[in-house]
Amino acid sequence: MSILVVGSVALDSIETPFGKRKEILGGSATFFSISASFFDKVNMIAAVGEDFPKKYLQLLKKRGIGTNGIAVNKGKTFRWEGRYEYDMNVAHTLATHLNVFQNFAPEIPKSLKNPSILFLANIDPDLQDSVLRQVNRPKLIACDSMNHWIANKRRSLEKFLHKVDIFLLNDAEARQLSGEANLIKAAKAIVSRGPKAVVIKKGEHGALYYFRGSHFLAPAYPLDNVYDPTGAGDTFAGGMIGYLSKAGKLDNVSIRKSIVYGSILASFVVEDFSMNKLLKISMDDVGKRYNELKEMTKF
Amino acid sequence: MSILVVGSVALDSIETPFGKRKEILGGSATFFSISASFFDKVNMIAAVGEDFPKKYLQLLKKRGIGTNGIAVNKGKTFRWEGRYEYDMNVAHTLATHLNVFQNFAPEIPKSLKNPSILFLANIDPDLQDSVLRQVNRPKLIACDSMNHWIANKRRSLEKFLHKVDIFLLNDAEARQLSGEANLIKAAKAIVSRGPKAVVIKKGEHGALYYFRGSHFLAPAYPLDNVYDPTGAGDTFAGGMIGYLSKAGKLDNVSIRKSIVYGSILASFVVEDFSMNKLLKISMDDVGKRYNELKEMTKF
Repeated sequence: MSILVVGSVALDSIETPFGKRKEILGGSATFFSISASFFDKVNMIAAVGEDFPKKYLQLLKKRGIGTNGIAVNKGKTFRWEGRYEYDMNVAHTLATHLNVFQNFAPEIPKSLKNPSILFLANIDPDLQDSVLRQVNRPKLIACDSMNHWIANKRRSLEKFLHKVDIFLLNDAEARQLSGEANLIKAAKAIVSRGPKAVVIKKGEHGALYYFRGSHFLAPAYPLDNVYDPTGAGDTFAGGMIGYLSKAGKLDNVSIRKSIVYGSILASFVVEDFSMNKLLKISMDDVGKRYNELKEMTKF
Repeated sequence: MSILVVGSVALDSIETPFGKRKEILGGSATFFSISASFFDKVNMIAAVGEDFPKKYLQLLKKRGIGTNGIAVNKGKTFRWEGRYEYDMNVAHTLATHLNVFQNFAPEIPKSLKNPSILFLANIDPDLQDSVLRQVNRPKLIACDSMNHWIANKRRSLEKFLHKVDIFLLNDAEARQLSGEANLIKAAKAIVSRGPKAVVIKKGEHGALYYFRGSHFLAPAYPLDNVYDPTGAGDTFAGGMIGYLSKAGKLDNVSIRKSIVYGSILASFVVEDFSMNKLLKISMDDVGKRYNELKEMTKF
Protein backbone atom coordinates (compact mmCIF):
# COMPACT_ATOMS: atom_id res chain seq x y z
CA MET A 1 0.00 0.00 0.00
CA SER A 2 1.11 3.63 -0.01
CA ILE A 3 1.24 5.89 3.00
CA LEU A 4 0.80 9.62 3.09
CA VAL A 5 1.69 11.48 6.29
CA VAL A 6 0.99 15.12 7.07
CA GLY A 7 2.72 16.71 10.04
CA SER A 8 5.66 18.73 11.23
CA VAL A 9 9.36 18.69 10.49
CA ALA A 10 11.28 20.42 13.22
CA LEU A 11 14.64 21.24 14.70
CA ASP A 12 14.56 20.22 18.36
CA SER A 13 16.75 21.37 21.22
CA ILE A 14 16.48 18.88 24.04
CA GLU A 15 17.71 18.56 27.59
CA THR A 16 17.38 15.32 29.53
CA PRO A 17 19.14 14.20 32.72
CA PHE A 18 21.50 12.32 30.37
CA GLY A 19 22.54 15.07 28.01
CA LYS A 20 21.74 18.04 25.83
CA ARG A 21 21.40 18.41 22.06
CA LYS A 22 20.84 21.50 19.90
CA GLU A 23 18.79 21.71 16.70
CA ILE A 24 18.55 18.01 16.03
CA LEU A 25 16.09 16.53 13.57
CA GLY A 26 12.57 16.27 14.98
CA GLY A 27 8.92 16.73 14.08
CA SER A 28 5.97 14.37 14.03
CA ALA A 29 6.06 13.61 10.30
CA THR A 30 9.80 12.91 10.45
CA PHE A 31 9.66 10.42 13.34
CA PHE A 32 6.62 8.80 11.76
CA SER A 33 8.26 8.44 8.34
CA ILE A 34 11.62 7.11 9.52
CA SER A 35 9.77 4.53 11.62
CA ALA A 36 7.33 3.54 8.85
CA SER A 37 10.21 3.29 6.37
CA PHE A 38 11.23 0.01 8.04
CA PHE A 39 8.17 -1.46 6.38
CA ASP A 40 6.93 0.51 3.40
CA LYS A 41 7.04 3.62 1.25
CA VAL A 42 5.92 6.88 2.87
CA ASN A 43 5.29 10.25 1.30
CA MET A 44 5.59 13.30 3.53
CA ILE A 45 3.59 16.51 3.45
CA ALA A 46 5.28 19.17 5.55
CA ALA A 47 6.94 22.57 5.41
CA VAL A 48 10.46 23.62 6.36
CA GLY A 49 12.30 26.93 6.20
CA GLU A 50 15.14 27.96 3.95
CA ASP A 51 17.55 27.16 6.80
CA PHE A 52 16.60 23.47 6.91
CA PRO A 53 19.81 21.41 6.55
CA LYS A 54 20.00 19.61 3.20
CA LYS A 55 21.61 16.62 4.89
CA TYR A 56 18.33 15.91 6.65
CA LEU A 57 16.40 15.86 3.38
CA GLN A 58 19.02 13.52 1.97
CA LEU A 59 18.72 11.30 5.01
CA LEU A 60 14.98 10.95 4.40
CA LYS A 61 15.44 10.27 0.69
CA LYS A 62 18.07 7.64 1.41
CA ARG A 63 15.45 5.71 3.34
CA GLY A 64 13.12 5.80 0.36
CA ILE A 65 10.85 8.42 1.89
CA GLY A 66 9.05 10.66 -0.60
CA THR A 67 9.99 14.28 0.12
CA ASN A 68 8.38 16.00 -2.85
CA GLY A 69 5.56 17.11 -0.58
CA ILE A 70 7.94 18.96 1.77
CA ALA A 71 7.62 22.63 0.88
CA VAL A 72 10.65 24.84 1.47
CA ASN A 73 9.08 28.13 2.50
CA LYS A 74 10.50 31.57 3.10
CA GLY A 75 11.61 31.87 6.72
CA LYS A 76 12.93 29.56 9.36
CA THR A 77 12.12 25.94 10.19
CA PHE A 78 9.84 25.16 13.15
CA ARG A 79 11.89 24.86 16.36
CA TRP A 80 10.96 23.24 19.65
CA GLU A 81 12.97 23.38 22.86
CA GLY A 82 12.12 20.98 25.65
CA ARG A 83 13.42 19.51 28.85
CA TYR A 84 12.72 16.19 30.59
CA GLU A 85 13.30 15.52 34.27
CA TYR A 86 13.88 12.02 35.63
CA ASP A 87 10.17 11.40 35.19
CA MET A 88 10.34 11.23 31.43
CA ASN A 89 6.60 11.04 30.98
CA VAL A 90 6.32 14.80 31.12
CA ALA A 91 7.93 17.10 28.54
CA HIS A 92 8.51 20.65 29.75
CA THR A 93 8.38 23.01 26.80
CA LEU A 94 11.01 25.71 27.12
CA ALA A 95 10.26 27.43 23.82
CA THR A 96 8.24 26.94 20.66
CA HIS A 97 9.13 28.92 17.52
CA LEU A 98 6.53 28.00 14.94
CA ASN A 99 8.26 29.95 12.16
CA VAL A 100 7.12 28.56 8.77
CA PHE A 101 4.84 26.09 10.56
CA GLN A 102 2.70 29.05 11.68
CA ASN A 103 1.19 29.37 8.22
CA PHE A 104 1.32 25.71 7.28
CA ALA A 105 -1.58 25.05 4.93
CA PRO A 106 -0.90 21.64 3.48
CA GLU A 107 -1.58 21.27 -0.22
CA ILE A 108 -1.51 17.77 -1.52
CA PRO A 109 0.18 17.43 -4.93
CA LYS A 110 -1.97 15.67 -7.49
CA SER A 111 0.39 12.69 -7.59
CA LEU A 112 -0.20 12.03 -3.88
CA LYS A 113 -3.99 12.32 -3.78
CA ASN A 114 -4.58 8.56 -3.78
CA PRO A 115 -2.89 7.19 -0.66
CA SER A 116 -3.96 3.77 0.65
CA ILE A 117 -3.34 4.98 4.17
CA LEU A 118 -3.46 8.56 5.38
CA PHE A 119 -1.84 9.48 8.69
CA LEU A 120 -2.63 12.91 10.02
CA ALA A 121 -0.03 13.63 12.66
CA ASN A 122 -0.59 16.17 15.37
CA ILE A 123 -1.61 19.44 13.71
CA ASP A 124 -4.63 21.75 13.99
CA PRO A 125 -7.73 19.56 13.48
CA ASP A 126 -9.02 22.05 10.89
CA LEU A 127 -5.89 21.41 8.85
CA GLN A 128 -6.28 17.67 9.35
CA ASP A 129 -9.77 18.01 7.94
CA SER A 130 -8.61 20.14 5.01
CA VAL A 131 -6.10 17.43 4.06
CA LEU A 132 -8.75 14.77 4.21
CA ARG A 133 -10.93 16.78 1.82
CA GLN A 134 -8.09 16.95 -0.70
CA VAL A 135 -7.51 13.18 -1.07
CA ASN A 136 -9.63 10.36 -2.41
CA ARG A 137 -10.97 8.20 0.42
CA PRO A 138 -8.01 6.11 1.65
CA LYS A 139 -8.53 2.54 2.88
CA LEU A 140 -7.42 3.69 6.32
CA ILE A 141 -7.47 7.11 7.96
CA ALA A 142 -5.52 7.42 11.18
CA CYS A 143 -4.59 10.47 13.20
CA ASP A 144 -2.96 11.82 16.32
CA SER A 145 -3.66 15.01 18.28
CA MET A 146 -2.45 16.75 21.45
CA ASN A 147 -3.57 18.44 24.66
CA HIS A 148 -3.42 21.88 23.01
CA TRP A 149 -6.09 21.03 20.42
CA ILE A 150 -8.22 19.14 22.94
CA ALA A 151 -8.25 22.25 25.12
CA ASN A 152 -8.55 24.92 22.42
CA LYS A 153 -10.17 23.28 19.38
CA ARG A 154 -12.30 20.58 20.92
CA ARG A 155 -15.28 21.19 18.66
CA SER A 156 -13.21 20.98 15.45
CA LEU A 157 -11.39 17.94 16.75
CA GLU A 158 -14.53 16.05 17.76
CA LYS A 159 -16.18 16.81 14.43
CA PHE A 160 -13.12 15.66 12.52
CA LEU A 161 -12.77 12.45 14.57
CA HIS A 162 -16.03 11.17 13.09
CA LYS A 163 -14.19 10.73 9.82
CA VAL A 164 -11.29 8.82 11.36
CA ASP A 165 -10.79 5.04 11.49
CA ILE A 166 -8.06 4.87 14.14
CA PHE A 167 -7.30 7.67 16.57
CA LEU A 168 -3.99 7.45 18.43
CA LEU A 169 -3.41 9.48 21.56
CA ASN A 170 -1.57 9.12 24.85
CA ASP A 171 -3.07 8.31 28.24
CA ALA A 172 -3.12 11.89 29.52
CA GLU A 173 -4.81 13.09 26.33
CA ALA A 174 -7.35 10.26 26.52
CA ARG A 175 -8.26 11.33 30.05
CA GLN A 176 -8.45 14.98 29.01
CA LEU A 177 -10.63 14.31 25.97
CA SER A 178 -13.02 11.87 27.65
CA GLY A 179 -13.15 13.26 31.18
CA GLU A 180 -12.63 9.71 32.43
CA ALA A 181 -9.68 8.85 34.70
CA ASN A 182 -10.06 5.14 33.98
CA LEU A 183 -8.55 4.35 30.57
CA ILE A 184 -10.97 1.51 29.85
CA LYS A 185 -13.84 3.95 30.26
CA ALA A 186 -11.91 6.62 28.38
CA ALA A 187 -11.44 4.34 25.38
CA LYS A 188 -15.15 3.53 25.25
CA ALA A 189 -16.11 7.18 25.65
CA ILE A 190 -13.80 8.31 22.85
CA VAL A 191 -15.03 5.67 20.42
CA SER A 192 -18.65 6.46 21.26
CA ARG A 193 -18.03 10.03 20.11
CA GLY A 194 -16.26 9.58 16.82
CA PRO A 195 -13.41 7.40 15.62
CA LYS A 196 -14.06 3.74 14.79
CA ALA A 197 -11.15 2.61 16.95
CA VAL A 198 -8.72 4.11 19.42
CA VAL A 199 -5.15 3.36 20.46
CA ILE A 200 -4.21 4.79 23.86
CA LYS A 201 -0.43 4.90 24.23
CA LYS A 202 0.73 4.38 27.81
CA GLY A 203 4.51 4.74 27.45
CA GLU A 204 6.34 2.09 29.49
CA HIS A 205 2.99 0.41 30.16
CA GLY A 206 2.26 -0.39 26.54
CA ALA A 207 -0.88 0.49 24.64
CA LEU A 208 -4.59 -0.18 24.74
CA TYR A 209 -6.54 -0.73 21.51
CA TYR A 210 -10.31 -0.59 21.59
CA PHE A 211 -12.56 -1.48 18.66
CA ARG A 212 -16.15 -2.72 18.54
CA GLY A 213 -16.36 -3.50 22.25
CA SER A 214 -13.17 -5.50 22.49
CA HIS A 215 -9.74 -4.66 23.84
CA PHE A 216 -6.21 -5.49 22.87
CA LEU A 217 -3.63 -4.92 25.60
CA ALA A 218 -0.27 -4.42 23.93
CA PRO A 219 2.86 -4.66 26.05
CA ALA A 220 5.83 -2.29 25.91
CA TYR A 221 9.30 -3.71 25.41
CA PRO A 222 11.03 -3.41 28.80
CA LEU A 223 13.93 -0.96 28.72
CA ASP A 224 16.74 -0.41 31.18
CA ASN A 225 17.19 3.15 30.06
CA VAL A 226 15.21 5.86 28.35
CA TYR A 227 17.42 8.68 27.11
CA ASP A 228 15.01 10.89 25.21
CA PRO A 229 11.28 10.18 24.84
CA THR A 230 10.78 12.84 22.13
CA GLY A 231 8.96 11.39 19.14
CA ALA A 232 8.04 8.11 20.81
CA GLY A 233 4.36 8.51 19.97
CA ASP A 234 4.98 9.40 16.32
CA THR A 235 7.48 6.55 16.01
CA PHE A 236 4.85 4.22 17.48
CA ALA A 237 2.36 5.41 14.88
CA GLY A 238 4.94 5.03 12.09
CA GLY A 239 5.73 1.45 13.06
CA MET A 240 2.06 0.59 13.35
CA ILE A 241 0.95 2.18 10.08
CA GLY A 242 4.09 1.01 8.26
CA TYR A 243 3.41 -2.59 9.25
CA LEU A 244 -0.26 -2.36 8.24
CA SER A 245 0.70 -0.93 4.87
CA LYS A 246 3.18 -3.72 4.22
CA ALA A 247 0.75 -6.39 5.46
CA GLY A 248 -1.87 -5.00 3.10
CA LYS A 249 -4.61 -6.16 5.46
CA LEU A 250 -6.64 -4.48 8.18
CA ASP A 251 -7.99 -7.56 9.97
CA ASN A 252 -7.77 -7.95 13.74
CA VAL A 253 -4.62 -10.10 13.69
CA SER A 254 -2.75 -7.62 11.50
CA ILE A 255 -3.83 -4.68 13.63
CA ARG A 256 -2.63 -6.36 16.81
CA LYS A 257 0.73 -7.15 15.23
CA SER A 258 0.99 -3.60 13.92
CA ILE A 259 0.48 -2.18 17.41
CA VAL A 260 3.23 -4.38 18.79
CA TYR A 261 5.54 -3.26 15.98
CA GLY A 262 4.68 0.32 16.86
CA SER A 263 5.62 -0.39 20.44
CA ILE A 264 8.92 -1.99 19.36
CA LEU A 265 9.92 0.89 17.11
CA ALA A 266 9.14 3.31 19.95
CA SER A 267 11.32 1.24 22.29
CA PHE A 268 14.29 1.92 20.03
CA VAL A 269 13.74 5.61 19.39
CA VAL A 270 13.82 6.55 23.09
CA GLU A 271 17.23 4.95 23.54
CA ASP A 272 19.00 7.88 21.92
CA PHE A 273 18.37 11.47 20.88
CA SER A 274 16.42 12.32 17.72
CA MET A 275 16.21 9.38 15.31
CA ASN A 276 19.80 8.30 15.94
CA LYS A 277 18.96 4.84 17.17
CA LEU A 278 16.42 4.16 14.41
CA LEU A 279 19.08 5.02 11.85
CA LYS A 280 21.47 2.46 13.35
CA ILE A 281 19.19 -0.56 13.58
CA SER A 282 18.02 -3.03 10.97
CA MET A 283 14.77 -4.89 10.41
CA ASP A 284 16.49 -7.87 12.07
CA ASP A 285 16.84 -5.88 15.29
CA VAL A 286 13.15 -4.99 15.10
CA GLY A 287 12.19 -8.62 14.52
CA LYS A 288 14.37 -9.77 17.40
CA ARG A 289 12.66 -7.46 19.89
CA TYR A 290 9.27 -8.44 18.49
CA ASN A 291 10.01 -12.11 19.14
CA GLU A 292 11.46 -11.37 22.58
CA LEU A 293 8.34 -9.42 23.51
CA LYS A 294 6.16 -12.26 22.30
CA GLU A 295 8.14 -14.66 24.47
CA MET A 296 8.00 -12.31 27.47
CA THR A 297 4.22 -12.05 27.34
CA LYS A 298 3.25 -15.63 26.53
CA PHE A 299 1.20 -17.55 29.06
CA MET B 1 0.45 -29.52 47.74
CA SER B 2 -0.27 -27.79 51.05
CA ILE B 3 0.03 -24.09 51.71
CA LEU B 4 0.88 -22.39 54.97
CA VAL B 5 0.40 -18.63 55.23
CA VAL B 6 1.53 -16.41 58.08
CA GLY B 7 0.18 -12.87 58.28
CA SER B 8 -2.46 -10.61 59.72
CA VAL B 9 -6.19 -10.89 60.26
CA ALA B 10 -7.74 -7.49 60.70
CA LEU B 11 -10.90 -5.47 60.97
CA ASP B 12 -10.69 -2.66 58.43
CA SER B 13 -12.57 0.60 58.29
CA ILE B 14 -12.39 1.98 54.78
CA GLU B 15 -13.42 5.12 52.98
CA THR B 16 -13.32 5.41 49.21
CA PRO B 17 -14.97 7.92 46.89
CA PHE B 18 -17.66 5.24 46.42
CA GLY B 19 -18.55 4.48 50.01
CA LYS B 20 -17.58 3.76 53.59
CA ARG B 21 -17.44 0.53 55.58
CA LYS B 22 -16.70 -0.08 59.27
CA GLU B 23 -14.85 -3.06 60.77
CA ILE B 24 -15.03 -5.32 57.75
CA LEU B 25 -12.91 -8.42 57.39
CA GLY B 26 -9.34 -7.65 56.31
CA GLY B 27 -5.74 -8.64 56.89
CA SER B 28 -3.05 -10.01 54.61
CA ALA B 29 -3.46 -13.67 55.62
CA THR B 30 -7.22 -13.44 55.15
CA PHE B 31 -7.16 -11.99 51.63
CA PHE B 32 -4.43 -14.44 50.70
CA SER B 33 -6.31 -17.46 52.02
CA ILE B 34 -9.71 -16.67 50.52
CA SER B 35 -8.02 -16.13 47.18
CA ALA B 36 -5.87 -19.28 47.37
CA SER B 37 -8.92 -21.29 48.46
CA PHE B 38 -10.17 -21.15 44.85
CA PHE B 39 -7.39 -23.61 44.08
CA ASP B 40 -6.14 -25.52 47.10
CA LYS B 41 -6.05 -26.05 50.85
CA VAL B 42 -4.51 -23.26 52.94
CA ASN B 43 -3.64 -23.24 56.62
CA MET B 44 -3.46 -19.87 58.34
CA ILE B 45 -1.15 -18.72 61.11
CA ALA B 46 -2.41 -15.51 62.64
CA ALA B 47 -3.72 -13.96 65.84
CA VAL B 48 -7.04 -12.30 66.58
CA GLY B 49 -8.52 -10.78 69.72
CA GLU B 50 -11.40 -12.02 71.81
CA ASP B 51 -13.68 -9.59 69.98
CA PHE B 52 -13.14 -11.22 66.59
CA PRO B 53 -16.53 -12.10 65.13
CA LYS B 54 -17.13 -15.86 65.05
CA LYS B 55 -18.92 -15.52 61.73
CA TYR B 56 -15.64 -14.61 60.08
CA LEU B 57 -13.93 -17.75 61.38
CA GLN B 58 -16.87 -19.77 60.12
CA LEU B 59 -16.60 -18.07 56.74
CA LEU B 60 -12.97 -19.17 56.45
CA LYS B 61 -13.74 -22.72 57.56
CA LYS B 62 -16.58 -22.97 55.08
CA ARG B 63 -14.03 -22.40 52.31
CA GLY B 64 -11.91 -25.26 53.59
CA ILE B 65 -9.30 -22.96 55.08
CA GLY B 66 -7.45 -24.38 58.09
CA THR B 67 -7.94 -22.01 61.03
CA ASN B 68 -6.35 -24.08 63.84
CA GLY B 69 -3.29 -21.85 63.61
CA ILE B 70 -5.31 -18.70 64.32
CA ALA B 71 -4.67 -17.88 67.98
CA VAL B 72 -7.42 -16.08 69.86
CA ASN B 73 -5.46 -13.86 72.23
CA LYS B 74 -6.49 -11.67 75.11
CA GLY B 75 -7.31 -8.20 73.85
CA LYS B 76 -8.69 -6.72 70.67
CA THR B 77 -8.21 -7.66 67.03
CA PHE B 78 -5.85 -5.61 64.85
CA ARG B 79 -7.67 -2.67 63.29
CA TRP B 80 -6.74 -0.54 60.30
CA GLU B 81 -8.51 2.57 59.10
CA GLY B 82 -7.75 3.90 55.67
CA ARG B 83 -8.97 6.22 52.99
CA TYR B 84 -8.53 6.25 49.21
CA GLU B 85 -8.96 9.28 46.99
CA TYR B 86 -9.82 9.02 43.30
CA ASP B 87 -6.22 7.96 42.70
CA MET B 88 -6.65 4.56 44.26
CA ASN B 89 -2.98 3.70 44.02
CA VAL B 90 -2.30 5.45 47.30
CA ALA B 91 -3.81 4.34 50.61
CA HIS B 92 -3.96 7.03 53.26
CA THR B 93 -3.75 5.43 56.69
CA LEU B 94 -6.07 7.20 59.12
CA ALA B 95 -5.35 4.95 62.11
CA THR B 96 -3.59 1.70 62.96
CA HIS B 97 -4.46 -0.13 66.17
CA LEU B 98 -2.14 -3.12 66.33
CA ASN B 99 -3.82 -4.53 69.47
CA VAL B 100 -3.06 -8.30 69.69
CA PHE B 101 -0.95 -8.02 66.53
CA GLN B 102 1.57 -5.95 68.51
CA ASN B 103 2.91 -9.04 70.25
CA PHE B 104 2.31 -11.46 67.41
CA ALA B 105 4.99 -14.17 67.69
CA PRO B 106 3.86 -16.89 65.37
CA GLU B 107 4.25 -20.42 66.66
CA ILE B 108 3.74 -23.14 64.13
CA PRO B 109 1.80 -26.13 65.48
CA LYS B 110 3.59 -29.43 64.93
CA SER B 111 0.93 -30.60 62.48
CA LEU B 112 1.68 -27.64 60.19
CA LYS B 113 5.48 -27.82 60.13
CA ASN B 114 5.67 -29.54 56.74
CA PRO B 115 4.04 -27.20 54.23
CA SER B 116 4.82 -27.67 50.54
CA ILE B 117 4.56 -23.92 50.07
CA LEU B 118 5.14 -21.26 52.70
CA PHE B 119 3.84 -17.75 52.14
CA LEU B 120 5.07 -15.12 54.55
CA ALA B 121 2.72 -12.19 54.16
CA ASN B 122 3.73 -8.69 55.15
CA ILE B 123 4.98 -8.82 58.76
CA ASP B 124 8.24 -7.87 60.50
CA PRO B 125 11.06 -9.62 58.57
CA ASP B 126 12.43 -10.96 61.87
CA LEU B 127 9.12 -12.73 62.40
CA GLN B 128 9.15 -13.99 58.84
CA ASP B 129 12.57 -15.45 59.55
CA SER B 130 11.46 -17.00 62.83
CA VAL B 131 8.62 -18.78 61.02
CA LEU B 132 10.98 -20.10 58.40
CA ARG B 133 13.19 -21.57 61.15
CA GLN B 134 10.23 -23.44 62.59
CA VAL B 135 9.24 -25.37 59.47
CA ASN B 136 10.94 -28.05 57.41
CA ARG B 137 12.22 -26.60 54.13
CA PRO B 138 9.17 -26.16 51.91
CA LYS B 139 9.38 -26.68 48.14
CA LEU B 140 8.62 -22.99 47.69
CA ILE B 141 9.13 -20.03 50.00
CA ALA B 142 7.45 -16.82 48.95
CA CYS B 143 6.98 -13.58 50.81
CA ASP B 144 5.70 -10.03 50.71
CA SER B 145 6.84 -6.94 52.64
CA MET B 146 6.02 -3.22 52.80
CA ASN B 147 7.52 0.27 52.81
CA HIS B 148 7.62 0.34 56.62
CA TRP B 149 10.03 -2.62 56.85
CA ILE B 150 12.11 -1.44 53.90
CA ALA B 151 12.59 1.88 55.70
CA ASN B 152 13.01 0.61 59.26
CA LYS B 153 14.25 -2.97 59.07
CA ARG B 154 16.17 -3.03 55.83
CA ARG B 155 19.05 -5.08 57.19
CA SER B 156 16.78 -7.81 58.59
CA LEU B 157 14.73 -7.81 55.41
CA GLU B 158 17.71 -8.08 53.07
CA LYS B 159 19.22 -10.88 55.14
CA PHE B 160 15.94 -12.76 55.18
CA LEU B 161 15.39 -12.34 51.43
CA HIS B 162 18.41 -14.57 50.73
CA LYS B 163 16.31 -17.48 51.93
CA VAL B 164 13.34 -16.65 49.73
CA ASP B 165 12.43 -18.14 46.35
CA ILE B 166 9.87 -15.58 45.18
CA PHE B 167 9.58 -12.09 46.61
CA LEU B 168 6.39 -10.20 45.80
CA LEU B 169 6.22 -6.44 46.23
CA ASN B 170 4.58 -3.49 44.56
CA ASP B 171 6.20 -0.98 42.21
CA ALA B 172 6.70 1.75 44.81
CA GLU B 173 8.30 -0.74 47.21
CA ALA B 174 10.54 -2.09 44.45
CA ARG B 175 11.78 1.43 43.73
CA GLN B 176 12.28 2.10 47.45
CA LEU B 177 14.19 -1.12 48.07
CA SER B 178 16.40 -0.96 44.98
CA GLY B 179 16.92 2.77 44.65
CA GLU B 180 16.09 2.37 40.95
CA ALA B 181 13.22 4.32 39.35
CA ASN B 182 13.17 1.99 36.34
CA LEU B 183 11.37 -1.23 37.28
CA ILE B 184 13.43 -3.40 34.91
CA LYS B 185 16.56 -2.25 36.71
CA ALA B 186 14.81 -2.52 40.08
CA ALA B 187 13.91 -6.17 39.43
CA LYS B 188 17.49 -7.03 38.52
CA ALA B 189 18.88 -5.15 41.52
CA ILE B 190 16.50 -6.89 43.93
CA VAL B 191 17.29 -10.36 42.61
CA SER B 192 21.02 -9.65 42.69
CA ARG B 193 20.72 -9.03 46.42
CA GLY B 194 18.69 -11.96 47.63
CA PRO B 195 15.56 -13.71 46.41
CA LYS B 196 15.77 -16.13 43.48
CA ALA B 197 12.89 -14.41 41.69
CA VAL B 198 10.79 -11.29 42.08
CA VAL B 199 7.24 -10.31 41.17
CA ILE B 200 6.68 -6.57 40.98
CA LYS B 201 2.97 -5.79 41.17
CA LYS B 202 1.98 -2.71 39.16
CA GLY B 203 -1.75 -2.47 39.89
CA GLU B 204 -3.72 -1.67 36.75
CA HIS B 205 -0.53 -2.14 34.70
CA GLY B 206 -0.12 -5.81 35.59
CA ALA B 207 2.97 -7.43 37.03
CA LEU B 208 6.59 -8.03 36.13
CA TYR B 209 8.25 -11.35 36.96
CA TYR B 210 12.02 -11.62 36.82
CA PHE B 211 13.98 -14.84 37.20
CA ARG B 212 17.40 -15.88 35.91
CA GLY B 213 17.77 -12.97 33.55
CA SER B 214 14.40 -13.29 31.87
CA HIS B 215 11.17 -11.36 32.21
CA PHE B 216 7.51 -12.20 32.13
CA LEU B 217 5.18 -9.26 31.58
CA ALA B 218 1.79 -10.18 33.01
CA PRO B 219 -1.20 -8.06 32.03
CA ALA B 220 -3.89 -6.83 34.39
CA TYR B 221 -7.53 -7.54 33.58
CA PRO B 222 -8.99 -4.20 32.44
CA LEU B 223 -11.62 -2.91 34.83
CA ASP B 224 -14.19 -0.19 34.40
CA ASN B 225 -14.35 0.46 38.11
CA VAL B 226 -12.21 -0.06 41.17
CA TYR B 227 -14.19 0.31 44.38
CA ASP B 228 -11.67 -0.66 47.05
CA PRO B 229 -8.08 -1.70 46.35
CA THR B 230 -7.47 -2.98 49.89
CA GLY B 231 -6.01 -6.47 49.85
CA ALA B 232 -5.33 -6.52 46.10
CA GLY B 233 -1.68 -7.49 46.60
CA ASP B 234 -2.45 -10.28 49.07
CA THR B 235 -5.23 -11.54 46.84
CA PHE B 236 -2.79 -11.55 43.93
CA ALA B 237 -0.35 -13.61 46.01
CA GLY B 238 -3.12 -15.98 47.09
CA GLY B 239 -4.23 -16.63 43.52
CA MET B 240 -0.67 -17.13 42.38
CA ILE B 241 0.40 -19.46 45.19
CA GLY B 242 -2.94 -21.27 45.19
CA TYR B 243 -2.60 -22.05 41.50
CA LEU B 244 1.00 -23.24 41.91
CA SER B 245 -0.03 -25.50 44.75
CA LYS B 246 -2.81 -27.05 42.73
CA ALA B 247 -0.62 -27.41 39.62
CA GLY B 248 1.98 -29.15 41.77
CA LYS B 249 4.73 -27.84 39.50
CA LEU B 250 7.08 -24.89 39.64
CA ASP B 251 8.22 -24.79 36.02
CA ASN B 252 8.21 -21.59 33.98
CA VAL B 253 4.86 -22.26 32.27
CA SER B 254 3.12 -22.91 35.61
CA ILE B 255 4.65 -19.83 37.19
CA ARG B 256 3.48 -17.62 34.33
CA LYS B 257 -0.04 -19.03 34.56
CA SER B 258 0.00 -18.59 38.33
CA ILE B 259 0.88 -14.91 37.99
CA VAL B 260 -2.00 -14.36 35.57
CA TYR B 261 -4.35 -16.13 38.00
CA GLY B 262 -3.05 -13.84 40.74
CA SER B 263 -3.83 -10.88 38.54
CA ILE B 264 -7.34 -12.21 37.81
CA LEU B 265 -8.18 -12.83 41.48
CA ALA B 266 -6.97 -9.32 42.29
CA SER B 267 -9.21 -7.93 39.53
CA PHE B 268 -12.23 -9.32 41.35
CA VAL B 269 -11.34 -8.30 44.89
CA VAL B 270 -11.08 -4.59 44.06
CA GLU B 271 -14.61 -4.55 42.66
CA ASP B 272 -16.17 -4.51 46.12
CA PHE B 273 -15.24 -3.90 49.74
CA SER B 274 -13.42 -6.54 51.79
CA MET B 275 -13.64 -10.01 50.25
CA ASN B 276 -17.27 -9.55 49.22
CA LYS B 277 -16.74 -10.08 45.52
CA LEU B 278 -14.46 -13.11 46.00
CA LEU B 279 -17.18 -14.71 48.09
CA LYS B 280 -19.71 -14.26 45.31
CA ILE B 281 -17.76 -15.64 42.36
CA SER B 282 -17.03 -19.18 41.28
CA MET B 283 -14.05 -20.84 39.66
CA ASP B 284 -15.96 -20.51 36.38
CA ASP B 285 -15.89 -16.73 36.71
CA VAL B 286 -12.15 -16.89 37.35
CA GLY B 287 -11.61 -19.11 34.33
CA LYS B 288 -13.72 -16.84 32.15
CA ARG B 289 -11.62 -13.76 32.96
CA TYR B 290 -8.44 -15.79 32.50
CA ASN B 291 -9.52 -16.76 29.00
CA GLU B 292 -10.66 -13.24 28.20
CA LEU B 293 -7.30 -11.86 29.30
CA LYS B 294 -5.52 -14.43 27.18
CA GLU B 295 -7.61 -13.35 24.19
CA MET B 296 -7.01 -9.65 24.92
CA THR B 297 -3.23 -10.04 24.96
CA LYS B 298 -2.71 -12.44 22.07
CA PHE B 299 -0.68 -11.29 19.10
